Amino acid sequence: MKTPQIVRTRAQLRAALDAARPESTGFVPTMGALHSGHGELFARARAENDLVVISIFVNELQFNDPGDYAKYPRTLEADVELAAAAGVDLVFAPDAKEIYPDGAPLIAVSSGKLGELYEGASRPGHFDGMLAVVAKLLNLADPRHGTYRAYFGQKDAQQLLLIRRMVADLCYPVQICSVPIVRTEQGLALSSRNALLDDDQRHAALVISRAIRMIAERAARHEPLNIDDAIGLFQMEPLVELDYFVVVDPRTLQELAFNCQDTPFTGEGLILVAAVVGGVRLIDNQPI
Amino acid sequence: MKTPQIVRTRAQLRAALDAARPESTGFVPTMGALHSGHGELFARARAENDLVVISIFVNELQFNDPGDYAKYPRTLEADVELAAAAGVDLVFAPDAKEIYPDGAPLIAVSSGKLGELYEGASRPGHFDGMLAVVAKLLNLADPRHGTYRAYFGQKDAQQLLLIRRMVADLCYPVQICSVPIVRTEQGLALSSRNALLDDDQRHAALVISRAIRMIAERAARHEPLNIDDAIGLFQMEPLVELDYFVVVDPRTLQELAFNCQDTPFTGEGLILVAAVVGGVRLIDNQPI
Repeated sequence: MKTPQIVRTRAQLRAALDAARPESTGFVPTMGALHSGHGELFARARAENDLVVISIFVNELQFNDPGDYAKYPRTLEADVELAAAAGVDLVFAPDAKEIYPDGAPLIAVSSGKLGELYEGASRPGHFDGMLAVVAKLLNLADPRHGTYRAYFGQKDAQQLLLIRRMVADLCYPVQICSVPIVRTEQGLALSSRNALLDDDQRHAALVISRAIRMIAERAARHEPLNIDDAIGLFQMEPLVELDYFVVVDPRTLQELAFNCQDTPFTGEGLILVAAVVGGVRLIDNQPI
Repeated sequence: MKTPQIVRTRAQLRAALDAARPESTGFVPTMGALHSGHGELFARARAENDLVVISIFVNELQFNDPGDYAKYPRTLEADVELAAAAGVDLVFAPDAKEIYPDGAPLIAVSSGKLGELYEGASRPGHFDGMLAVVAKLLNLADPRHGTYRAYFGQKDAQQLLLIRRMVADLCYPVQICSVPIVRTEQGLALSSRNALLDDDQRHAALVISRAIRMIAERAARHEPLNIDDAIGLFQMEPLVELDYFVVVDPRTLQELAFNCQDTPFTGEGLILVAAVVGGVRLIDNQPI
Protein backbone atom coordinates (compact mmCIF):
# COMPACT_ATOMS: atom_id res chain seq x y z
CA MET A 1 0.00 0.00 0.00
CA LYS A 2 1.57 3.17 -1.30
CA THR A 3 0.98 6.60 0.25
CA PRO A 4 -0.66 8.97 -2.23
CA GLN A 5 1.12 12.17 -3.18
CA ILE A 6 -0.56 15.07 -1.35
CA VAL A 7 -0.64 18.46 -3.05
CA ARG A 8 -1.97 21.67 -1.53
CA THR A 9 -1.87 24.22 -4.35
CA ARG A 10 -3.20 24.43 -7.88
CA ALA A 11 0.35 24.80 -9.18
CA GLN A 12 1.44 21.59 -7.43
CA LEU A 13 -1.61 19.78 -8.78
CA ARG A 14 -0.89 20.97 -12.33
CA ALA A 15 2.76 19.95 -12.03
CA ALA A 16 1.83 16.49 -10.76
CA LEU A 17 -0.71 15.98 -13.58
CA ASP A 18 1.72 17.20 -16.22
CA ALA A 19 4.41 14.88 -14.89
CA ALA A 20 2.09 11.87 -14.93
CA ARG A 21 0.76 12.24 -18.52
CA PRO A 22 -1.62 9.30 -17.95
CA GLU A 23 -3.58 7.63 -20.75
CA SER A 24 -6.65 7.90 -18.52
CA THR A 25 -7.46 9.78 -15.35
CA GLY A 26 -10.23 9.22 -12.83
CA PHE A 27 -11.08 12.15 -10.58
CA VAL A 28 -13.22 11.98 -7.44
CA PRO A 29 -14.04 15.30 -5.73
CA THR A 30 -14.97 14.89 -2.05
CA MET A 31 -15.45 16.93 1.11
CA GLY A 32 -13.44 14.42 3.12
CA ALA A 33 -14.87 12.54 6.13
CA LEU A 34 -14.50 9.56 3.85
CA HIS A 35 -16.47 6.33 4.33
CA SER A 36 -16.85 3.17 2.32
CA GLY A 37 -19.32 4.89 -0.03
CA HIS A 38 -16.39 7.04 -1.14
CA GLY A 39 -14.32 3.85 -1.17
CA GLU A 40 -16.60 2.51 -3.92
CA LEU A 41 -15.99 5.65 -5.99
CA PHE A 42 -12.24 5.27 -5.58
CA ALA A 43 -12.40 1.58 -6.47
CA ARG A 44 -14.32 2.29 -9.69
CA ALA A 45 -11.88 5.07 -10.60
CA ARG A 46 -8.95 2.74 -9.80
CA ALA A 47 -10.35 -0.08 -11.93
CA GLU A 48 -10.95 2.14 -14.96
CA ASN A 49 -7.98 4.54 -15.06
CA ASP A 50 -4.20 4.77 -15.01
CA LEU A 51 -4.18 7.71 -12.61
CA VAL A 52 -6.60 8.29 -9.73
CA VAL A 53 -6.89 11.81 -8.33
CA ILE A 54 -9.17 12.84 -5.48
CA SER A 55 -9.81 16.22 -3.93
CA ILE A 56 -10.67 16.90 -0.30
CA PHE A 57 -12.17 20.34 0.18
CA VAL A 58 -14.97 21.39 2.51
CA ASN A 59 -16.69 23.95 0.29
CA GLU A 60 -18.18 26.68 2.46
CA LEU A 61 -20.25 28.02 -0.48
CA GLN A 62 -22.51 24.97 -0.50
CA PHE A 63 -23.42 25.19 3.20
CA ASN A 64 -26.51 27.28 3.71
CA ASP A 65 -25.97 26.97 7.50
CA PRO A 66 -22.65 28.39 8.85
CA GLY A 67 -22.94 26.20 11.96
CA ASP A 68 -23.17 23.10 9.78
CA TYR A 69 -20.01 24.22 7.96
CA ALA A 70 -18.11 24.87 11.19
CA LYS A 71 -18.88 21.44 12.65
CA TYR A 72 -18.38 19.48 9.41
CA PRO A 73 -15.83 16.75 10.26
CA ARG A 74 -12.24 17.34 9.02
CA THR A 75 -10.32 14.07 9.23
CA LEU A 76 -7.48 14.45 6.73
CA GLU A 77 -5.22 11.83 8.29
CA ALA A 78 -7.85 9.09 8.25
CA ASP A 79 -9.00 10.21 4.80
CA VAL A 80 -5.50 9.82 3.37
CA GLU A 81 -5.31 6.33 4.90
CA LEU A 82 -8.57 5.31 3.26
CA ALA A 83 -7.38 6.83 -0.04
CA ALA A 84 -4.09 4.92 0.22
CA ALA A 85 -5.92 1.66 0.82
CA ALA A 86 -8.02 2.32 -2.28
CA GLY A 87 -4.93 2.91 -4.42
CA VAL A 88 -5.42 6.65 -4.94
CA ASP A 89 -2.35 8.26 -6.57
CA LEU A 90 -2.86 11.94 -5.90
CA VAL A 91 -4.78 13.87 -3.20
CA PHE A 92 -5.51 17.55 -3.79
CA ALA A 93 -6.27 19.12 -0.40
CA PRO A 94 -6.34 22.90 -0.91
CA ASP A 95 -7.37 25.54 1.60
CA ALA A 96 -10.14 28.03 0.89
CA LYS A 97 -7.75 30.77 -0.29
CA GLU A 98 -6.39 28.44 -2.96
CA ILE A 99 -9.86 27.75 -4.35
CA TYR A 100 -11.40 31.19 -3.80
CA PRO A 101 -8.41 33.58 -3.90
CA ASP A 102 -10.73 36.55 -4.52
CA GLY A 103 -13.53 35.42 -2.20
CA ALA A 104 -16.83 34.15 -3.57
CA PRO A 105 -16.83 33.98 -7.39
CA LEU A 106 -18.28 36.98 -9.24
CA ILE A 107 -19.39 34.72 -12.08
CA ALA A 108 -21.81 32.16 -10.70
CA VAL A 109 -22.87 28.86 -12.19
CA SER A 110 -26.60 28.83 -11.62
CA SER A 111 -28.45 25.58 -11.01
CA GLY A 112 -31.64 27.24 -12.25
CA LYS A 113 -35.06 25.64 -11.89
CA LEU A 114 -33.60 22.14 -11.42
CA GLY A 115 -31.67 23.43 -8.42
CA GLU A 116 -34.75 24.87 -6.74
CA LEU A 117 -36.50 21.51 -6.34
CA TYR A 118 -36.28 19.03 -3.42
CA GLU A 119 -32.87 19.44 -1.75
CA GLY A 120 -32.58 22.91 -3.27
CA ALA A 121 -35.91 23.90 -1.72
CA SER A 122 -34.73 22.72 1.71
CA ARG A 123 -31.18 24.11 1.38
CA PRO A 124 -31.31 27.44 -0.52
CA GLY A 125 -28.07 28.18 -2.38
CA HIS A 126 -26.69 24.68 -1.79
CA PHE A 127 -26.60 23.59 -5.42
CA ASP A 128 -25.22 26.88 -6.76
CA GLY A 129 -22.40 26.62 -4.23
CA MET A 130 -21.83 22.98 -5.15
CA LEU A 131 -21.66 23.79 -8.89
CA ALA A 132 -19.29 26.71 -8.22
CA VAL A 133 -16.70 24.37 -6.76
CA VAL A 134 -17.28 21.44 -9.10
CA ALA A 135 -16.95 23.77 -12.13
CA LYS A 136 -13.53 24.80 -10.79
CA LEU A 137 -12.33 21.39 -9.65
CA LEU A 138 -13.19 19.67 -12.94
CA ASN A 139 -10.90 22.19 -14.67
CA LEU A 140 -8.16 22.08 -12.05
CA ALA A 141 -7.95 18.27 -12.11
CA ASP A 142 -8.19 18.08 -15.92
CA PRO A 143 -5.17 15.99 -16.97
CA ARG A 144 -5.21 17.65 -20.43
CA HIS A 145 -4.06 14.31 -21.73
CA GLY A 146 -5.87 11.09 -22.61
CA THR A 147 -9.30 10.19 -21.30
CA TYR A 148 -10.74 12.15 -18.39
CA ARG A 149 -13.46 10.71 -16.15
CA ALA A 150 -15.02 12.06 -12.96
CA TYR A 151 -16.93 9.93 -10.47
CA PHE A 152 -19.95 10.88 -8.38
CA GLY A 153 -22.25 8.85 -6.16
CA GLN A 154 -25.83 8.11 -7.22
CA LYS A 155 -26.70 8.82 -3.56
CA ASP A 156 -26.82 12.55 -4.30
CA ALA A 157 -29.09 12.06 -7.30
CA GLN A 158 -30.07 15.68 -7.78
CA GLN A 159 -26.43 16.79 -7.48
CA LEU A 160 -25.43 14.15 -10.03
CA LEU A 161 -28.08 15.32 -12.49
CA LEU A 162 -27.04 18.97 -12.09
CA ILE A 163 -23.38 18.07 -12.67
CA ARG A 164 -24.29 16.06 -15.78
CA ARG A 165 -26.29 19.03 -17.08
CA MET A 166 -23.46 21.46 -16.32
CA VAL A 167 -20.93 19.29 -18.12
CA ALA A 168 -23.28 19.03 -21.13
CA ASP A 169 -24.28 22.70 -21.13
CA LEU A 170 -20.73 24.01 -20.72
CA CYS A 171 -19.17 21.25 -22.90
CA TYR A 172 -16.59 20.20 -20.32
CA PRO A 173 -14.18 17.59 -21.72
CA VAL A 174 -14.92 15.03 -19.01
CA GLN A 175 -17.06 11.90 -18.79
CA ILE A 176 -19.27 11.84 -15.72
CA CYS A 177 -19.54 8.35 -14.21
CA SER A 178 -22.00 7.49 -11.47
CA VAL A 179 -21.60 4.80 -8.84
CA PRO A 180 -24.58 3.08 -7.18
CA ILE A 181 -25.51 3.74 -3.57
CA VAL A 182 -23.70 1.63 -0.98
CA ARG A 183 -25.98 0.36 1.81
CA THR A 184 -25.58 -1.28 5.18
CA GLU A 185 -26.70 -4.88 5.37
CA GLN A 186 -30.06 -3.65 6.74
CA GLY A 187 -30.47 -1.25 3.78
CA LEU A 188 -29.51 2.18 5.14
CA ALA A 189 -27.70 4.25 2.48
CA LEU A 190 -24.19 5.10 3.66
CA SER A 191 -23.67 8.73 4.66
CA SER A 192 -21.28 10.62 6.90
CA ARG A 193 -24.37 11.79 8.75
CA ASN A 194 -25.36 8.26 9.84
CA ALA A 195 -22.72 8.51 12.56
CA LEU A 196 -24.93 11.12 14.25
CA LEU A 197 -27.79 8.63 14.77
CA ASP A 198 -28.28 6.54 17.91
CA ASP A 199 -29.38 2.88 17.67
CA ASP A 200 -33.11 3.59 17.86
CA GLN A 201 -32.88 6.32 15.25
CA ARG A 202 -30.76 4.16 12.98
CA HIS A 203 -33.33 1.38 13.27
CA ALA A 204 -36.21 3.77 12.59
CA ALA A 205 -34.36 5.20 9.56
CA LEU A 206 -34.63 1.82 7.84
CA VAL A 207 -38.17 2.81 6.90
CA ILE A 208 -36.60 4.87 4.11
CA SER A 209 -35.08 1.96 2.25
CA ARG A 210 -38.06 -0.26 3.11
CA ALA A 211 -40.43 2.21 1.49
CA ILE A 212 -38.17 2.56 -1.54
CA ARG A 213 -37.96 -1.22 -1.92
CA MET A 214 -41.76 -1.55 -1.78
CA ILE A 215 -42.24 0.89 -4.64
CA ALA A 216 -39.25 -0.33 -6.68
CA GLU A 217 -40.61 -3.89 -6.57
CA ARG A 218 -44.01 -2.74 -7.79
CA ALA A 219 -42.31 -0.82 -10.63
CA ALA A 220 -40.28 -3.88 -11.61
CA ARG A 221 -43.56 -5.86 -11.86
CA HIS A 222 -45.24 -3.00 -13.81
CA GLU A 223 -47.88 -2.72 -11.13
CA PRO A 224 -49.51 0.54 -10.03
CA LEU A 225 -47.09 2.25 -7.63
CA ASN A 226 -49.64 3.63 -5.14
CA ILE A 227 -46.91 5.64 -3.44
CA ASP A 228 -49.33 6.66 -0.71
CA ASP A 229 -48.64 3.19 0.71
CA ALA A 230 -44.97 4.13 1.06
CA ILE A 231 -45.85 7.43 2.66
CA GLY A 232 -48.05 5.47 5.06
CA LEU A 233 -45.03 3.45 6.24
CA PHE A 234 -43.43 6.69 7.45
CA GLN A 235 -46.50 7.58 9.48
CA MET A 236 -45.84 4.44 11.53
CA GLU A 237 -42.32 5.65 12.49
CA PRO A 238 -42.67 8.54 14.95
CA LEU A 239 -38.87 9.05 15.03
CA VAL A 240 -38.83 9.79 11.29
CA GLU A 241 -40.21 12.99 9.82
CA LEU A 242 -40.73 12.62 6.07
CA ASP A 243 -39.81 15.65 3.94
CA TYR A 244 -40.67 14.21 0.51
CA PHE A 245 -41.22 10.83 -1.13
CA VAL A 246 -41.74 11.32 -4.86
CA VAL A 247 -41.35 9.50 -8.14
CA VAL A 248 -39.90 11.82 -10.77
CA ASP A 249 -38.70 11.90 -14.35
CA PRO A 250 -34.97 11.14 -14.04
CA ARG A 251 -34.08 13.89 -16.54
CA THR A 252 -36.32 16.77 -15.44
CA LEU A 253 -37.07 15.80 -11.81
CA GLN A 254 -40.70 16.66 -12.49
CA GLU A 255 -43.11 14.41 -10.57
CA LEU A 256 -44.66 11.56 -12.54
CA ALA A 257 -48.00 12.34 -10.97
CA PHE A 258 -50.05 10.32 -13.45
CA ASN A 259 -47.86 7.28 -12.90
CA CYS A 260 -47.53 7.13 -9.15
CA GLN A 261 -50.89 5.89 -7.99
CA ASP A 262 -53.28 3.39 -9.51
CA THR A 263 -52.22 2.92 -13.14
CA PRO A 264 -49.66 0.24 -14.05
CA PHE A 265 -46.14 1.68 -14.02
CA THR A 266 -44.33 1.86 -17.32
CA GLY A 267 -41.24 3.69 -18.52
CA GLU A 268 -38.58 5.12 -16.28
CA GLY A 269 -38.62 6.94 -13.01
CA LEU A 270 -36.55 7.92 -10.03
CA ILE A 271 -37.73 7.56 -6.44
CA LEU A 272 -36.44 10.49 -4.35
CA VAL A 273 -36.73 10.57 -0.56
CA ALA A 274 -35.67 12.94 2.18
CA ALA A 275 -36.47 12.55 5.86
CA VAL A 276 -35.23 13.96 9.14
CA VAL A 277 -34.33 11.57 11.96
CA GLY A 278 -33.29 13.05 15.30
CA GLY A 279 -32.46 16.35 13.63
CA VAL A 280 -30.31 14.63 10.99
CA ARG A 281 -31.36 15.03 7.37
CA LEU A 282 -31.10 11.80 5.35
CA ILE A 283 -31.63 11.36 1.61
CA ASP A 284 -32.00 8.27 -0.50
CA ASN A 285 -33.15 7.35 -4.01
CA GLN A 286 -33.65 4.53 -6.47
CA PRO A 287 -33.98 4.53 -10.25
CA ILE A 288 -36.97 2.43 -11.40
CA MET B 1 -3.27 32.26 -49.44
CA LYS B 2 -4.63 28.98 -48.19
CA THR B 3 -8.34 28.31 -47.63
CA PRO B 4 -9.06 27.48 -43.99
CA GLN B 5 -10.62 24.14 -43.15
CA ILE B 6 -14.31 24.70 -42.37
CA VAL B 7 -15.97 22.41 -39.83
CA ARG B 8 -19.65 22.42 -38.90
CA THR B 9 -19.94 20.00 -36.00
CA ARG B 10 -18.31 19.58 -32.60
CA ALA B 11 -17.08 16.15 -33.63
CA GLN B 12 -15.37 17.57 -36.74
CA LEU B 13 -13.82 20.34 -34.67
CA ARG B 14 -12.50 17.85 -32.12
CA ALA B 15 -11.09 15.61 -34.87
CA ALA B 16 -9.34 18.56 -36.54
CA LEU B 17 -7.83 19.72 -33.22
CA ASP B 18 -6.72 16.21 -32.30
CA ALA B 19 -5.12 15.77 -35.71
CA ALA B 20 -3.24 19.08 -35.46
CA ARG B 21 -1.71 18.57 -32.00
CA PRO B 22 -0.25 22.10 -32.10
CA GLU B 23 2.27 23.40 -29.58
CA SER B 24 0.10 26.51 -29.25
CA THR B 25 -3.42 27.40 -30.32
CA GLY B 26 -5.04 30.81 -30.70
CA PHE B 27 -8.84 30.85 -30.69
CA VAL B 28 -11.02 33.79 -31.73
CA PRO B 29 -14.78 33.41 -31.21
CA THR B 30 -16.84 35.73 -33.44
CA MET B 31 -20.39 36.27 -34.63
CA GLY B 32 -19.18 36.73 -38.21
CA ALA B 33 -19.81 39.91 -40.24
CA LEU B 34 -16.06 40.26 -39.94
CA HIS B 35 -14.26 43.57 -40.35
CA SER B 36 -10.69 44.72 -39.88
CA GLY B 37 -11.17 44.90 -36.10
CA HIS B 38 -11.56 41.11 -36.23
CA GLY B 39 -8.63 41.08 -38.63
CA GLU B 40 -6.44 42.48 -35.83
CA LEU B 41 -7.54 39.65 -33.52
CA PHE B 42 -6.69 37.06 -36.18
CA ALA B 43 -3.31 38.71 -36.85
CA ARG B 44 -2.38 38.62 -33.14
CA ALA B 45 -3.49 34.99 -32.89
CA ARG B 46 -1.52 34.18 -36.07
CA ALA B 47 1.65 35.87 -34.79
CA GLU B 48 1.56 34.08 -31.45
CA ASN B 49 0.39 30.53 -32.20
CA ASP B 50 0.99 27.48 -34.38
CA LEU B 51 -2.71 26.92 -34.99
CA VAL B 52 -5.38 29.62 -35.40
CA VAL B 53 -9.01 28.61 -34.89
CA ILE B 54 -11.99 30.94 -35.18
CA SER B 55 -15.67 30.34 -34.64
CA ILE B 56 -18.52 32.05 -36.47
CA PHE B 57 -21.80 31.68 -34.62
CA VAL B 58 -24.59 34.21 -34.22
CA ASN B 59 -25.64 33.43 -30.66
CA GLU B 60 -29.36 34.04 -30.28
CA LEU B 61 -29.09 33.89 -26.47
CA GLN B 62 -27.19 37.17 -26.25
CA PHE B 63 -29.75 39.16 -28.27
CA ASN B 64 -32.34 40.71 -26.02
CA ASP B 65 -34.22 41.86 -29.15
CA PRO B 66 -35.42 39.08 -31.53
CA GLY B 67 -35.63 41.57 -34.41
CA ASP B 68 -31.98 42.49 -33.90
CA TYR B 69 -31.08 38.77 -34.06
CA ALA B 70 -33.10 38.19 -37.23
CA LYS B 71 -31.44 41.05 -39.11
CA TYR B 72 -27.90 40.43 -37.85
CA PRO B 73 -25.72 40.12 -40.98
CA ARG B 74 -24.68 36.57 -41.99
CA THR B 75 -21.86 36.80 -44.53
CA LEU B 76 -20.08 33.45 -44.29
CA GLU B 77 -18.46 33.57 -47.72
CA ALA B 78 -16.88 37.00 -47.17
CA ASP B 79 -15.96 36.01 -43.61
CA VAL B 80 -14.06 32.94 -44.81
CA GLU B 81 -12.21 35.12 -47.34
CA LEU B 82 -11.15 37.54 -44.63
CA ALA B 83 -10.13 34.62 -42.41
CA ALA B 84 -8.11 33.10 -45.25
CA ALA B 85 -6.30 36.38 -45.86
CA ALA B 86 -5.44 36.52 -42.14
CA GLY B 87 -3.97 33.01 -42.22
CA VAL B 88 -6.68 31.31 -40.13
CA ASP B 89 -6.32 27.51 -40.18
CA LEU B 90 -9.69 26.32 -38.96
CA VAL B 91 -13.18 27.86 -39.01
CA PHE B 92 -15.86 26.37 -36.77
CA ALA B 93 -19.25 27.46 -38.14
CA PRO B 94 -21.90 25.45 -36.30
CA ASP B 95 -25.66 25.87 -36.49
CA ALA B 96 -27.77 26.53 -33.39
CA LYS B 97 -28.70 22.83 -32.92
CA GLU B 98 -25.02 21.94 -32.71
CA ILE B 99 -24.41 24.46 -29.93
CA TYR B 100 -27.73 24.14 -28.12
CA PRO B 101 -28.90 20.59 -28.89
CA ASP B 102 -31.34 20.67 -25.96
CA GLY B 103 -32.43 24.29 -26.39
CA ALA B 104 -31.35 26.98 -23.95
CA PRO B 105 -28.96 25.62 -21.29
CA LEU B 106 -30.52 24.56 -17.98
CA ILE B 107 -27.32 25.48 -16.15
CA ALA B 108 -26.65 29.17 -16.67
CA VAL B 109 -23.42 31.07 -16.23
CA SER B 110 -24.52 34.19 -14.45
CA SER B 111 -22.74 37.49 -15.05
CA GLY B 112 -23.98 38.69 -11.65
CA LYS B 113 -23.67 42.28 -10.48
CA LEU B 114 -20.92 43.07 -13.02
CA GLY B 115 -23.26 42.06 -15.80
CA GLU B 116 -26.04 44.36 -14.62
CA LEU B 117 -24.04 47.57 -15.14
CA TYR B 118 -23.79 49.74 -18.30
CA GLU B 119 -24.34 47.50 -21.35
CA GLY B 120 -26.09 44.97 -19.13
CA ALA B 121 -28.50 47.66 -17.89
CA SER B 122 -29.36 48.62 -21.47
CA ARG B 123 -29.49 45.05 -22.81
CA PRO B 124 -30.99 42.76 -20.13
CA GLY B 125 -29.78 39.15 -20.43
CA HIS B 126 -27.11 40.07 -23.00
CA PHE B 127 -24.10 39.17 -20.87
CA ASP B 128 -25.58 35.94 -19.48
CA GLY B 129 -26.26 34.84 -23.06
CA MET B 130 -22.76 35.85 -24.11
CA LEU B 131 -21.17 33.90 -21.23
CA ALA B 132 -23.33 30.85 -22.01
CA VAL B 133 -21.82 30.54 -25.47
CA VAL B 134 -18.26 31.59 -24.55
CA ALA B 135 -18.23 29.03 -21.72
CA LYS B 136 -19.09 26.34 -24.31
CA LEU B 137 -16.85 27.55 -27.12
CA LEU B 138 -13.76 27.82 -24.91
CA ASN B 139 -14.21 24.15 -24.06
CA LEU B 140 -15.09 23.04 -27.61
CA ALA B 141 -12.03 24.76 -29.13
CA ASP B 142 -9.69 23.61 -26.34
CA PRO B 143 -6.81 21.89 -28.16
CA ARG B 144 -6.08 19.78 -25.04
CA HIS B 145 -2.45 20.05 -26.05
CA GLY B 146 0.19 22.75 -25.58
CA THR B 147 -0.62 26.38 -24.84
CA TYR B 148 -4.16 27.62 -25.31
CA ARG B 149 -4.94 31.31 -25.85
CA ALA B 150 -8.19 33.05 -26.70
CA TYR B 151 -8.41 36.55 -28.15
CA PHE B 152 -11.02 39.22 -27.50
CA GLY B 153 -11.24 42.87 -28.49
CA GLN B 154 -10.81 45.62 -25.91
CA LYS B 155 -13.71 47.33 -27.73
CA ASP B 156 -16.21 45.29 -25.71
CA ALA B 157 -14.53 46.16 -22.42
CA GLN B 158 -17.28 44.91 -20.12
CA GLN B 159 -17.55 41.64 -22.07
CA LEU B 160 -13.77 41.22 -21.85
CA LEU B 161 -13.80 41.78 -18.09
CA LEU B 162 -16.65 39.27 -17.62
CA ILE B 163 -14.84 36.66 -19.69
CA ARG B 164 -11.63 37.20 -17.72
CA ARG B 165 -13.62 36.79 -14.48
CA MET B 166 -15.35 33.66 -15.77
CA VAL B 167 -12.06 32.08 -16.79
CA ALA B 168 -10.59 32.92 -13.36
CA ASP B 169 -13.66 31.86 -11.38
CA LEU B 170 -14.16 28.59 -13.28
CA CYS B 171 -10.40 27.93 -13.68
CA TYR B 172 -10.54 27.43 -17.45
CA PRO B 173 -7.18 26.30 -18.84
CA VAL B 174 -6.91 29.19 -21.32
CA GLN B 175 -5.07 32.51 -21.39
CA ILE B 176 -7.31 35.43 -22.30
CA CYS B 177 -5.53 37.97 -24.54
CA SER B 178 -7.01 41.34 -25.36
CA VAL B 179 -6.37 43.35 -28.50
CA PRO B 180 -6.65 47.17 -28.57
CA ILE B 181 -9.49 48.95 -30.34
CA VAL B 182 -8.99 49.57 -34.06
CA ARG B 183 -10.14 53.05 -35.16
CA THR B 184 -10.77 54.83 -38.43
CA GLU B 185 -8.32 57.61 -39.26
CA GLN B 186 -10.83 60.09 -37.77
CA GLY B 187 -11.02 58.11 -34.55
CA LEU B 188 -14.28 56.13 -34.76
CA ALA B 189 -13.93 52.69 -33.16
CA LEU B 190 -14.55 49.97 -35.76
CA SER B 191 -17.85 48.12 -35.40
CA SER B 192 -20.13 46.16 -37.71
CA ARG B 193 -22.79 48.68 -36.75
CA ASN B 194 -20.90 51.64 -38.26
CA ALA B 195 -22.13 50.51 -41.69
CA LEU B 196 -25.64 51.53 -40.58
CA LEU B 197 -24.63 55.23 -40.19
CA ASP B 198 -24.96 57.83 -42.94
CA ASP B 199 -22.21 60.41 -43.50
CA ASP B 200 -23.68 63.04 -41.15
CA GLN B 201 -24.21 60.51 -38.40
CA ARG B 202 -20.73 59.09 -38.85
CA HIS B 203 -19.30 62.59 -38.60
CA ALA B 204 -21.36 63.37 -35.51
CA ALA B 205 -20.28 60.08 -33.90
CA LEU B 206 -16.69 61.33 -33.80
CA VAL B 207 -17.65 63.23 -30.66
CA ILE B 208 -17.29 59.92 -28.83
CA SER B 209 -13.59 59.48 -29.50
CA ARG B 210 -13.01 63.26 -29.19
CA ALA B 211 -14.49 63.24 -25.70
CA ILE B 212 -12.49 60.15 -24.75
CA ARG B 213 -9.28 61.74 -26.02
CA MET B 214 -9.90 64.91 -24.03
CA ILE B 215 -10.23 62.97 -20.76
CA ALA B 216 -7.43 60.49 -21.54
CA GLU B 217 -5.01 63.36 -22.16
CA ARG B 218 -5.92 64.96 -18.84
CA ALA B 219 -5.38 61.61 -17.11
CA ALA B 220 -1.98 61.19 -18.76
CA ARG B 221 -0.98 64.64 -17.40
CA HIS B 222 -2.40 63.77 -13.93
CA GLU B 223 -4.77 66.72 -14.18
CA PRO B 224 -8.30 66.77 -12.77
CA LEU B 225 -10.54 64.94 -15.26
CA ASN B 226 -13.62 67.16 -15.00
CA ILE B 227 -15.62 64.69 -17.06
CA ASP B 228 -18.55 67.09 -17.19
CA ASP B 229 -16.52 68.85 -19.93
CA ALA B 230 -16.69 65.64 -21.99
CA ILE B 231 -20.39 65.28 -21.36
CA GLY B 232 -20.73 68.91 -22.51
CA LEU B 233 -19.24 68.00 -25.91
CA PHE B 234 -22.12 65.58 -26.48
CA GLN B 235 -24.67 68.32 -25.77
CA MET B 236 -23.32 70.15 -28.81
CA GLU B 237 -24.07 67.17 -31.11
CA PRO B 238 -27.85 66.92 -31.57
CA LEU B 239 -27.50 63.73 -33.67
CA VAL B 240 -25.84 61.91 -30.76
CA GLU B 241 -27.75 60.83 -27.69
CA LEU B 242 -25.36 60.00 -24.84
CA ASP B 243 -26.24 56.96 -22.73
CA TYR B 244 -23.29 57.06 -20.33
CA PHE B 245 -19.80 58.55 -20.11
CA VAL B 246 -18.09 57.29 -16.96
CA VAL B 247 -14.66 56.65 -15.54
CA VAL B 248 -14.60 53.37 -13.66
CA ASP B 249 -12.31 51.04 -11.78
CA PRO B 250 -11.09 48.61 -14.49
CA ARG B 251 -11.57 45.61 -12.18
CA THR B 252 -14.92 46.34 -10.56
CA LEU B 253 -16.48 48.78 -13.08
CA GLN B 254 -17.52 50.92 -10.12
CA GLU B 255 -17.42 54.64 -10.92
CA LEU B 256 -14.36 56.50 -9.66
CA ALA B 257 -16.61 59.31 -8.50
CA PHE B 258 -14.00 60.99 -6.32
CA ASN B 259 -11.49 61.01 -9.13
CA CYS B 260 -13.52 62.24 -12.07
CA GLN B 261 -13.96 65.93 -11.38
CA ASP B 262 -11.64 68.47 -9.80
CA THR B 263 -8.89 66.50 -8.04
CA PRO B 264 -5.72 65.52 -9.92
CA PHE B 265 -6.12 62.06 -11.49
CA THR B 266 -3.92 59.30 -10.15
CA GLY B 267 -3.97 55.56 -10.40
CA GLU B 268 -5.84 53.60 -13.04
CA GLY B 269 -9.21 53.97 -14.66
CA LEU B 270 -11.28 52.99 -17.65
CA ILE B 271 -13.38 55.47 -19.62
CA LEU B 272 -16.61 53.78 -20.78
CA VAL B 273 -18.98 55.41 -23.26
CA ALA B 274 -22.22 54.42 -24.95
CA ALA B 275 -24.26 56.63 -27.24
CA VAL B 276 -27.04 56.20 -29.77
CA VAL B 277 -26.66 57.77 -33.22
CA GLY B 278 -29.56 57.47 -35.66
CA GLY B 279 -30.96 54.53 -33.70
CA VAL B 280 -27.59 52.73 -33.74
CA ARG B 281 -25.98 51.97 -30.39
CA LEU B 282 -22.22 52.63 -30.33
CA ILE B 283 -19.79 51.86 -27.52
CA ASP B 284 -16.21 52.89 -26.98
CA ASN B 285 -13.67 52.93 -24.15
CA GLN B 286 -10.13 53.77 -23.18
CA PRO B 287 -7.96 52.61 -20.28
CA ILE B 288 -6.31 55.54 -18.49
